[in-house]
Amino acid sequence: MTAARLARYLPILTWGRTYSRGNLSNDAGAALIVTIMLIPQSLAYAMLAGLPPEAGLYASIAPIILYAIFGTSRALAVGPVAVVSLMTAAAIGGVAEQGTMGYAVAALTLAGLSGAMMLAMGVLRLGFLANFLSHPVVAGFITASGILIALGQVKHILGIAASGDTLPELAVSLAANVGQTNPVTLAIGCVALAFLFWVRRGLNPLLRRWGLGVGLAGALTKAGPVLAVVATTVVVWGLGLAERGVGIVGTVPASLPPLTLPSFSPALIGQLLLPALLISVIGFVESISVAQTLAAKKRQRIDPDQELIGLGAANVAASLTGGFPVTGGFSRSVVNYDAGADTPAAGAYTAVGLGIAAVALTPLIHFLPNATLAATIIVAVLSLVDFSILRTAWHYSRADFAAVAVTILTTLIAGVEVGVSAGVILSIMLHLYQTSKPHIAEVGCIPGTQHFRNITRHDVQTDAAILTLRIDESLYFANARYLEDVVLDRVTRDPVVREVVLMCSAVNAIDLSALESLEALSARLGDMGIRLHLSEVKGPVMDRLARTHFLTHLSGQVFQSQWDAVTALRAAPRTAA
Amino acid sequence: MTAARLARYLPILTWGRTYSRGNLSNDAGAALIVTIMLIPQSLAYAMLAGLPPEAGLYASIAPIILYAIFGTSRALAVGPVAVVSLMTAAAIGGVAEQGTMGYAVAALTLAGLSGAMMLAMGVLRLGFLANFLSHPVVAGFITASGILIALGQVKHILGIAASGDTLPELAVSLAANVGQTNPVTLAIGCVALAFLFWVRRGLNPLLRRWGLGVGLAGALTKAGPVLAVVATTVVVWGLGLAERGVGIVGTVPASLPPLTLPSFSPALIGQLLLPALLISVIGFVESISVAQTLAAKKRQRIDPDQELIGLGAANVAASLTGGFPVTGGFSRSVVNYDAGADTPAAGAYTAVGLGIAAVALTPLIHFLPNATLAATIIVAVLSLVDFSILRTAWHYSRADFAAVAVTILTTLIAGVEVGVSAGVILSIMLHLYQTSKPHIAEVGCIPGTQHFRNITRHDVQTDAAILTLRIDESLYFANARYLEDVVLDRVTRDPVVREVVLMCSAVNAIDLSALESLEALSARLGDMGIRLHLSEVKGPVMDRLARTHFLTHLSGQVFQSQWDAVTALRAAPRTAA
Repeated sequence: MTAARLARYLPILTWGRTYSRGNLSNDAGAALIVTIMLIPQSLAYAMLAGLPPEAGLYASIAPIILYAIFGTSRALAVGPVAVVSLMTAAAIGGVAEQGTMGYAVAALTLAGLSGAMMLAMGVLRLGFLANFLSHPVVAGFITASGILIALGQVKHILGIAASGDTLPELAVSLAANVGQTNPVTLAIGCVALAFLFWVRRGLNPLLRRWGLGVGLAGALTKAGPVLAVVATTVVVWGLGLAERGVGIVGTVPASLPPLTLPSFSPALIGQLLLPALLISVIGFVESISVAQTLAAKKRQRIDPDQELIGLGAANVAASLTGGFPVTGGFSRSVVNYDAGADTPAAGAYTAVGLGIAAVALTPLIHFLPNATLAATIIVAVLSLVDFSILRTAWHYSRADFAAVAVTILTTLIAGVEVGVSAGVILSIMLHLYQTSKPHIAEVGCIPGTQHFRNITRHDVQTDAAILTLRIDESLYFANARYLEDVVLDRVTRDPVVREVVLMCSAVNAIDLSALESLEALSARLGDMGIRLHLSEVKGPVMDRLARTHFLTHLSGQVFQSQWDAVTALRAAPRTAA
Repeated sequence: MTAARLARYLPILTWGRTYSRGNLSNDAGAALIVTIMLIPQSLAYAMLAGLPPEAGLYASIAPIILYAIFGTSRALAVGPVAVVSLMTAAAIGGVAEQGTMGYAVAALTLAGLSGAMMLAMGVLRLGFLANFLSHPVVAGFITASGILIALGQVKHILGIAASGDTLPELAVSLAANVGQTNPVTLAIGCVALAFLFWVRRGLNPLLRRWGLGVGLAGALTKAGPVLAVVATTVVVWGLGLAERGVGIVGTVPASLPPLTLPSFSPALIGQLLLPALLISVIGFVESISVAQTLAAKKRQRIDPDQELIGLGAANVAASLTGGFPVTGGFSRSVVNYDAGADTPAAGAYTAVGLGIAAVALTPLIHFLPNATLAATIIVAVLSLVDFSILRTAWHYSRADFAAVAVTILTTLIAGVEVGVSAGVILSIMLHLYQTSKPHIAEVGCIPGTQHFRNITRHDVQTDAAILTLRIDESLYFANARYLEDVVLDRVTRDPVVREVVLMCSAVNAIDLSALESLEALSARLGDMGIRLHLSEVKGPVMDRLARTHFLTHLSGQVFQSQWDAVTALRAAPRTAA
């Protein structure tokens, strides 16, 4: 393996070689800010995934180091994120009881599977698979997930028990138990919520007015959750509110991430295969769009397949160190970037900071109320909820609107796995449907020119015996028969047609099905005494046709241009059959 | 409902109004020939479907009449066909024991479900769904089905028991029981096989040499199975071979088709839903291609959605009269056409002929050996087996080859349902894969012209600061991110680029995902100090873009032609950012 090739698979060799003292101080500064922000976030997302709080810290340590070695983004911060944590809870909730050993092992297994899939996709250069998640589907899915996540945290704000993976289940469960609301918990939750909303909406503009820079104001704003965590923990501890029924985090082991092993049970792996695939794809899509946005600002390059390897390694690391599925998160990466991170080493320093927190700070969070964590989750995810995609899509195209609407509705009603699958399948079906009935325009010549335009839009010259159709789509199996239908329908209604010319200027490809349809069309038109011609066939398409018998069997000719076609056919009209 | 609209749904109103004595004699003559040919074929395909022989006759009577009323093809003959009968056996074999009442009811249910689906698809004008079966997949599927059918009949030739829906199952089962071969059965089977092969290969040329017309020689050749049936029945009866262990058809009730009801059990319907869908689609595709081939010869028109209604009605009729799934068959339709059928009334007369056969001839087929029916099936289906599609596809494109090869292999190894599903899914995936990495050419101007061509193929002029990429594909979610990657990759490698022009002459559509990718690309290029321009955007695409904020947010301009773009950008170069 050459050094260049090795460097492609190990981007650390590229940036590591030129690592300077300036890089070190920038990276360390960014790492400090990110560490402070990540502590409450990691605890909260572990709770969202249904796991003990320390799992969130563990999931932020080893993965971030592995990504630093294998990933291509210089600013991406990898760890638990809201949507993937929700998907984790939904996937594992079906196979194990929350709070049991089996649940934690299932989380490790899910991370391991998802990591293995990402690694495989990266090595096989299958990153393009993620493209089948269209933007509207992702937008709809994230909005619906945000609603499910927020609603799922309401129980912690109320201090009641509730469960469910879908909107109806959650609503019914909350309604049934709302009578048990703990007023003290509710008070803490509401204060935390109000404070966090104020930090997000009011503090940032205030700090800016006080003359702080955009970056610093943003970073301080992101530290709001830390303040809420410290304040509510102190209040709960000082007033002894845990005895008044306020749910707290409780005892958290003070330890570095433990070495763990995922399960290799075929039954469990079978159950987690589809969720792992969905988590891989959603996680990758979320991560790559963050990475590309940040990389473009510094004219850096992101290699999507290498990103899969980086994220895959991070998830495998999560499964071996007591974590759960992770990916590149938007808010943490932006904070990392804004705080001045130069290289992925910033991630490694963050990992050190979180390691210290896992050992030294865990005793301090015993009295941290769950309501505060729930409030940080709710405030974070409500910023993901954005229904404007519905309006945008509606104005742009009904197909895109249908994909968004179905994704949102099925995610809310049937859960994340069904939702994202339905969105992907529907958008593929709609795309195939649209290309299966391509725009086919009958064209004529604009007088005095050699240009051919749609007869319904322009005042053009046509010849009754020569029918010219311009096909505005590549020809493939899904539309091959449609073309046959359109042409045969047109000529059976118009018995004077003697020549049919298909103008192929917008036909980028012709597959074997379409070729056979063209052959059948030529033969069927031949039975009616009509010749079939092509014009303006593109080079690569012509190369491919030339390899077959099509051109010799074609009843007519292939013309360089539509003008050539009409000139030649008018000069030598065919006598009626 | 207007008369014209009514006539669209009831094509019989169109041809029935002008029905003449000439039509009558032509149709009746054709019906006689088709009836003779259909008797052994119907019995054989019932056996192939695992049903008693009379079911084959029943399935040919009511369906043919319903199709005559609702169908649009004037020559199509509807009834049991080989591939659909095999699919029926595979589907029902999983839910009921052959020979039981449950098996027959499942067959009725399958026909009813498949009929209901076809009716629904026809009324909702969803006929295009059948287009997702590409030609190579259909060709591969039919070849593999032919092999499975022929191999499945070998047990009747040997006079042994064997079972299985796949090549390995059948091979193992035949090998295990080959020791029980009945020599008398084997002799009858081999003689019948040899005779039928000779009829097909040798008789037709002989008759032609004797001066018979193509049509008559063809029709007489098709009557070969009748001769084999009569001769072997007489031999088995005369020599008392049934006592020597030769499997015979046995007692067949002499009756018109009975009135029957499919099952409405949700469990059974659930199990048969997917098979019914596959049978509907395969049956429709087979039928429509026959119908279109025959219609084109007389410049008649086939309405695919109305065909679905005709075939749907035929299948519902089959389910109500003791039949099983049916469709338009190739050989019977060609015979019908060659024998001079003018209108669908020929089908109705064939139904009368078969009705008489069901009442009067059934006692005569008691001693008909199963080996003869098996021989007629084997000879018929081996003509479907055609591996040349593999060579054709290999030469044309690797993607088409992969679709055929996978369809053939999975059909043989995992059965018809898995095979056809795998073929459809794989061909859709391959199509999406191909369009997800579209051809993107960097272009420059051919000196002295306004034409822009690929810089790797032509000697063209370029400007280092202006990068022009021609995109040879519609932009949609599957390739939107790829375009981003290609452009960003190209400009990060080449820091002198100041302007990027995307030449959109072959872009037939831009969906919302692609629009958002273009917006992101514009913003990311903007971060690098590069402007993004479009040129040669098609009218419908431009209409759609104009409805959004894209054009106002775009860092550059939209140029009518690439020449305009280069001229304008060279005249007013941008200063370095």
